Amino acid sequence: MDYQHLITFIMEMLGTVAFASSGAMTAVEKNMDIFGVSVLGVVTATGGGLIRDLVLGITPPGMFRDPVYALAAIVTSCCLFWILYAKKEWLSGAFRATYDKIMLAFDAVGLGIFTAVGIFTAVQNGYQDNLFLLIFVGTITGVGGGILRDVLAGETPYIFVKHVYACASLAGALFYVLLQEPFGQVTAMFGTSALVILLRFLAAHYKWNLPRLKGSV
Amino acid sequence: MDYQHLITFIMEMLGTVAFASSGAMTAVEKNMDIFGVSVLGVVTATGGGLIRDLVLGITPPGMFRDPVYALAAIVTSCCLFWILYAKKEWLSGAFRATYDKIMLAFDAVGLGIFTAVGIFTAVQNGYQDNLFLLIFVGTITGVGGGILRDVLAGETPYIFVKHVYACASLAGALFYVLLQEPFGQVTAMFGTSALVILLRFLAAHYKWNLPRLKGSV
Amino acid sequence: MDYQHLITFIMEMLGTVAFASSGAMTAVEKNMDIFGVSVLGVVTATGGGLIRDLVLGITPPGMFRDPVYALAAIVTSCCLFWILYAKKEWLSGAFRATYDKIMLAFDAVGLGIFTAVGIFTAVQNGYQDNLFLLIFVGTITGVGGGILRDVLAGETPYIFVKHVYACASLAGALFYVLLQEPFGQVTAMFGTSALVILLRFLAAHYKWNLPRLKGSV
Repeated sequence: MDYQHLITFIMEMLGTVAFASSGAMTAVEKNMDIFGVSVLGVVTATGGGLIRDLVLGITPPGMFRDPVYALAAIVTSCCLFWILYAKKEWLSGAFRATYDKIMLAFDAVGLGIFTAVGIFTAVQNGYQDNLFLLIFVGTITGVGGGILRDVLAGETPYIFVKHVYACASLAGALFYVLLQEPFGQVTAMFGTSALVILLRFLAAHYKWNLPRLKGSV
Repeated sequence: MDYQHLITFIMEMLGTVAFASSGAMTAVEKNMDIFGVSVLGVVTATGGGLIRDLVLGITPPGMFRDPVYALAAIVTSCCLFWILYAKKEWLSGAFRATYDKIMLAFDAVGLGIFTAVGIFTAVQNGYQDNLFLLIFVGTITGVGGGILRDVLAGETPYIFVKHVYACASLAGALFYVLLQEPFGQVTAMFGTSALVILLRFLAAHYKWNLPRLKGSV
Repeated sequence: MDYQHLITFIMEMLGTVAFASSGAMTAVEKNMDIFGVSVLGVVTATGGGLIRDLVLGITPPGMFRDPVYALAAIVTSCCLFWILYAKKEWLSGAFRATYDKIMLAFDAVGLGIFTAVGIFTAVQNGYQDNLFLLIFVGTITGVGGGILRDVLAGETPYIFVKHVYACASLAGALFYVLLQEPFGQVTAMFGTSALVILLRFLAAHYKWNLPRLKGSV
């Protein structure tokens, strides 16, 4: 069990770093100052869990009872800011391309583990039988931070317009609900994370997009 | 009483369909994919009740305890998407004009019934004597979904700029507070709904607008 | 003690008037109608406390249990609207410059007292030992209304891009946490308010800005 906790913690940390980086990068591109960069990093990394906890009536939300994730997000955002401040040329070019690839991987891990952790939190709070709630809560934990990031940055939320992103989280949440009865929570968590990560990689590689009226973006 | 429940349910469903359609149409016009269209439909239809329940401390919010409204919103949004996907020319022209008129009527019904249901929910939870809370909760249940729709779509919220919309909801909420003491909750609910619907039709027909500094839009 | 309550009440009212005015002015400049102006005034004045109460699980939030602040915000917004409606030339020129200076002072008082009151509310609800929560709650009470104002008006939140604003609130929150143990809550509240007000005046006078990548705005 300790081993599983460690793996979950490491995956959550990878996701936190990835989500905080995506928030901080959005803020840098909007020319926000270092405070705005940190806030957007924290909001992106912890926003999904915050909405989940408000919906489930868990107050104060988990991000305050265990501030290690928020602190990791702040440190990540500040580091990214200072690196880019010192090396402005890294904002584009080959460095940025490599960075984007690494972040894509981290982000997929974060989306998968956050979706799984979101459902597990709802199960722990006694909502095991409300499948609609479980699926919603898993998806919002996965994608809520990104929605808040885009709303605060004045962008149309990314998840509504590009690639199979929220759908990967939603598919993972459905998978969890199917797995939890026969295989238990731990297997469901890892199965969900694996499926979401796989779907995200496939979607990014093959440029999967959902149908829209006016053609692809 | 069963008869009243049925009427309320039918009116709530009309409102859900209208609100979901307005969210889905906004998403289509922003070129979102079918996932974004569904999310914006659900958010518009259930967002007002979600904010109401968070403010009243009802967790998990009603949309999870009785998912029929969220499911109706998803079905509505997907149907609208596929119809417009098959018949793109319906996005404008005579079909659109007729559609807009029907939706205006549905939307007025939704605004009226949601306002009334919002206050009734607060009364059921023991806040009968906090008139300020009742009025706020009624109005936010009526207009909250539309505000979330516009924020997520990156628009200035419609209710702040056009026609007598939120004011109709607010007037209905005030009317409820006046009616509930002498006539009871059921009469207050139907009186409120009727007043809001009437005000919306009058406002749309006569193009009523509230004063603003730089002239009408 | 009565004396302290009176001072706190007066300072909270000054802050409410200042925050409501900033929301109402934003709405006027976005050409919203008088309803939108009132809503944006109320949201700006009470939004920080609303987020605080949702995070702390205080339902219904304080703005409904003691509606005097919301009512003061509505009256302020309507007065500002009608004055500008009657005297449109006051939107610019010498009058506006004087108005902006007075509002800057009121706003600093509001930011300081709201930050202090936010932390004090958390302490009263038993979170005295969760320092991370206290600091977050103080800052969000101070700046949350302004964030909601800018999101609803479709602007990039002011606090992310301009001058040392949220940082003043954050510094005040840290100061409170340091003061509360040796000196007690009352001293901490006044010390925090004083520090935030001082920092805001210095930041506005010397045009302090936090570092950003692409130079100052």
